[in-house]
Amino acid sequence: MSYKFDKKIVKFQSINNPYKQDVIIHPIMRGGIIPDEVQKMLIDEGWMKVGYAVCYDCIEGRSGLVSKPPINEFLPTVAEFFDGDTAEHTFGSRAAQFSVMKTIADNISEDFAKIVLTDPLCHYTTAIAAEMNNLKIVEAQHSNYPDYKVNAEDFVDRIESIKKETGKLPGLIAVTHVEPYYGNLNPAKEVGKIAKDYGIPYMVNAAYTAGIFPVSMKELKADFLTVSAHKSMASIGPLGFLVTNYEWSDKAFKKSTIKPDRTGRTFSKKIVNIFGCSIGGLPLISAMYSFPHVAERVKKWEEELDKARWFISEMEKIDGIRLVGERPHNHHLMHFETPIFWEISKHHKRKGFFLAEEMIKRGIVGLHRGLSKHMKISLYGLSWEEVRGVRDAFYDLTKKYVDEFKLNYESQKA
Amino acid sequence: MSYKFDKKIVKFQSINNPYKQDVIIHPIMRGGIIPDEVQKMLIDEGWMKVGYAVCYDCIEGRSGLVSKPPINEFLPTVAEFFDGDTAEHTFGSRAAQFSVMKTIADNISEDFAKIVLTDPLCHYTTAIAAEMNNLKIVEAQHSNYPDYKVNAEDFVDRIESIKKETGKLPGLIAVTHVEPYYGNLNPAKEVGKIAKDYGIPYMVNAAYTAGIFPVSMKELKADFLTVSAHKSMASIGPLGFLVTNYEWSDKAFKKSTIKPDRTGRTFSKKIVNIFGCSIGGLPLISAMYSFPHVAERVKKWEEELDKARWFISEMEKIDGIRLVGERPHNHHLMHFETPIFWEISKHHKRKGFFLAEEMIKRGIVGLHRGLSKHMKISLYGLSWEEVRGVRDAFYDLTKKYVDEFKLNYESQKA
Repeated sequence: MSYKFDKKIVKFQSINNPYKQDVIIHPIMRGGIIPDEVQKMLIDEGWMKVGYAVCYDCIEGRSGLVSKPPINEFLPTVAEFFDGDTAEHTFGSRAAQFSVMKTIADNISEDFAKIVLTDPLCHYTTAIAAEMNNLKIVEAQHSNYPDYKVNAEDFVDRIESIKKETGKLPGLIAVTHVEPYYGNLNPAKEVGKIAKDYGIPYMVNAAYTAGIFPVSMKELKADFLTVSAHKSMASIGPLGFLVTNYEWSDKAFKKSTIKPDRTGRTFSKKIVNIFGCSIGGLPLISAMYSFPHVAERVKKWEEELDKARWFISEMEKIDGIRLVGERPHNHHLMHFETPIFWEISKHHKRKGFFLAEEMIKRGIVGLHRGLSKHMKISLYGLSWEEVRGVRDAFYDLTKKYVDEFKLNYESQKA
Repeated sequence: MSYKFDKKIVKFQSINNPYKQDVIIHPIMRGGIIPDEVQKMLIDEGWMKVGYAVCYDCIEGRSGLVSKPPINEFLPTVAEFFDGDTAEHTFGSRAAQFSVMKTIADNISEDFAKIVLTDPLCHYTTAIAAEMNNLKIVEAQHSNYPDYKVNAEDFVDRIESIKKETGKLPGLIAVTHVEPYYGNLNPAKEVGKIAKDYGIPYMVNAAYTAGIFPVSMKELKADFLTVSAHKSMASIGPLGFLVTNYEWSDKAFKKSTIKPDRTGRTFSKKIVNIFGCSIGGLPLISAMYSFPHVAERVKKWEEELDKARWFISEMEKIDGIRLVGERPHNHHLMHFETPIFWEISKHHKRKGFFLAEEMIKRGIVGLHRGLSKHMKISLYGLSWEEVRGVRDAFYDLTKKYVDEFKLNYESQKA
């Protein structure tokens, strides 16, 4: 390439991370914080030396069959942890959901329509996975503002209306265990019972819960559990898991049967729906290192929930701020409506950007830049001192601007 | 979980890497060695702190649109580097190939058959990508033992036979730039001309070349270039790129249009064929850090080739050892037939495992465990001193066992 090109690209080698010392409050990040001791092991053991980090001793040509490091023991352990029968690692929950939808699309019988019935606030990756497999998304409803709750019985109504319209059952029911908009815990167990009663395959997307609190797919009556390791299992991304029961594992993890015509080569160890082999690499090593930590932390979920609920009550002391979503809240993802910040943004020269920027000035990163009317936040895994620090930062910036702009708001009711 | 479970999982937190000090000679690893200074930046800048490493400042909901870190500048730079028009990052070349095959399958017109015409030694991921999209693989032929060369003209024969059989053209021609069995450089440019003449979409899988020597997809007349960052761009895995020309980019990177019925939500920034957003994470940061190094190293390819050719001539001084594949050799992946090691394995108590194990004892890792009749090896990026060290290790172990087992072999002809 040209001298000009060489000059242009130099900057990529010195990209800095302005947030390396900051407290992270981004809801998609908190469950994926890598413990210090895991980072240390990754470094000390030299796993960052090479891209294909888990392939030194690959004999059979698929990461899941590697025994050094013990991936072939780790995957069944992950399955056991989530009370499933078989697990494979994937490129995140999105790729796991793709595999599920593909399994459904490939095996659909005439009793079922090419429709996925979902909760109404499923993650976008559920919709994309359906789109990738030419499946339509039909949604159950929620209760609208302010709690957006989903009722399991509504799934029955939707199944019946799909039956009426198409003469068939939906090909899959997919429920987001905790949804990503308001952090609501969906009635996954009750929907599981409904799915079983109708004989409809059932997937639970546990990207926000598996690794956060105890999740049993048997209890949920799920056929498929999709898991995000970088979101909720303290792992380097991208990594996730697809866990299935025995009934579905052969279909979900079917081996390759394609046979090119001349060489007649076959690839019988490769799993089609996970691209043959999903590589793993450094993310998979990190997941193994983090796993004992994750297995331990799910036992302490109640402590984490206390922090979230305390923080909600503290934030609601600021005039106008209100949690949107279910009460009492059952997840670390919190969504607040923040009319006071919206009001400040109208007076602030940085407009809606003031909020995230003020927090960053205070060493707290993760609010969506530009938004001030609403905010999503998580304090999962932070110490009580840090949790109080985040509260104080919001109190502080509110007071500052209420005073500065002489707003008709109380900065705290307390 | 139970006490027994907790006890069982403790071991995952202390998995060690027995090869952290070793010289790596695994052909899939050498192009993915992470430079020391890149590892240092990843650590010092705290990018390992969280799974979603590139999402702090995501505003639009897709990693490719993020400006801090400058992914939105990096992707066009990658496209420019490979002489293409548009690039997106993917979960490796396998996911890029999947996107290509999906693009073809989704857009196939009646003039084209659901057939991918490939070189006969394409990587398994090409076959799996086809299988995932219900496309058949038809292969051109090779010249068989000992050079396995592919002739571009044979693609014409195959196109004609497909036309005769189906009345249609193949939906895609896919050529592996350098194939993974013998390291042969395929006639990608000549096939590109043929593809253009027939008007058949053309993909080059450059997993073993892009990032190793200069690759111009315009010169190859490719519509799609699939790239592996962990294999050939000195990156943490899993990561790859799909590069397209303008003609195909809207189709390959089409935005989501799915619209769930009740909420009417749309996801118009998300790219369907890459799961909406391909996350990136630590692998993507590593690729940006490594990129200037990669752009520089491709200019020094001839030096690397000298090492490979020198090594071939040195290895062939051992009685019976012979390179399989084209001569002169044009890639760092070398495949040797090693009857002398096969003979040793018959006398050795570790059977075929002796070879990889003997090398590991000498601080050299990456031979496929259990195999001794053939071996694949790469010395890409090693210093001349290390290259000589690898040669010496083979000489040494050969001499040791020829003497010990009193074999009728000369250990070196020289």
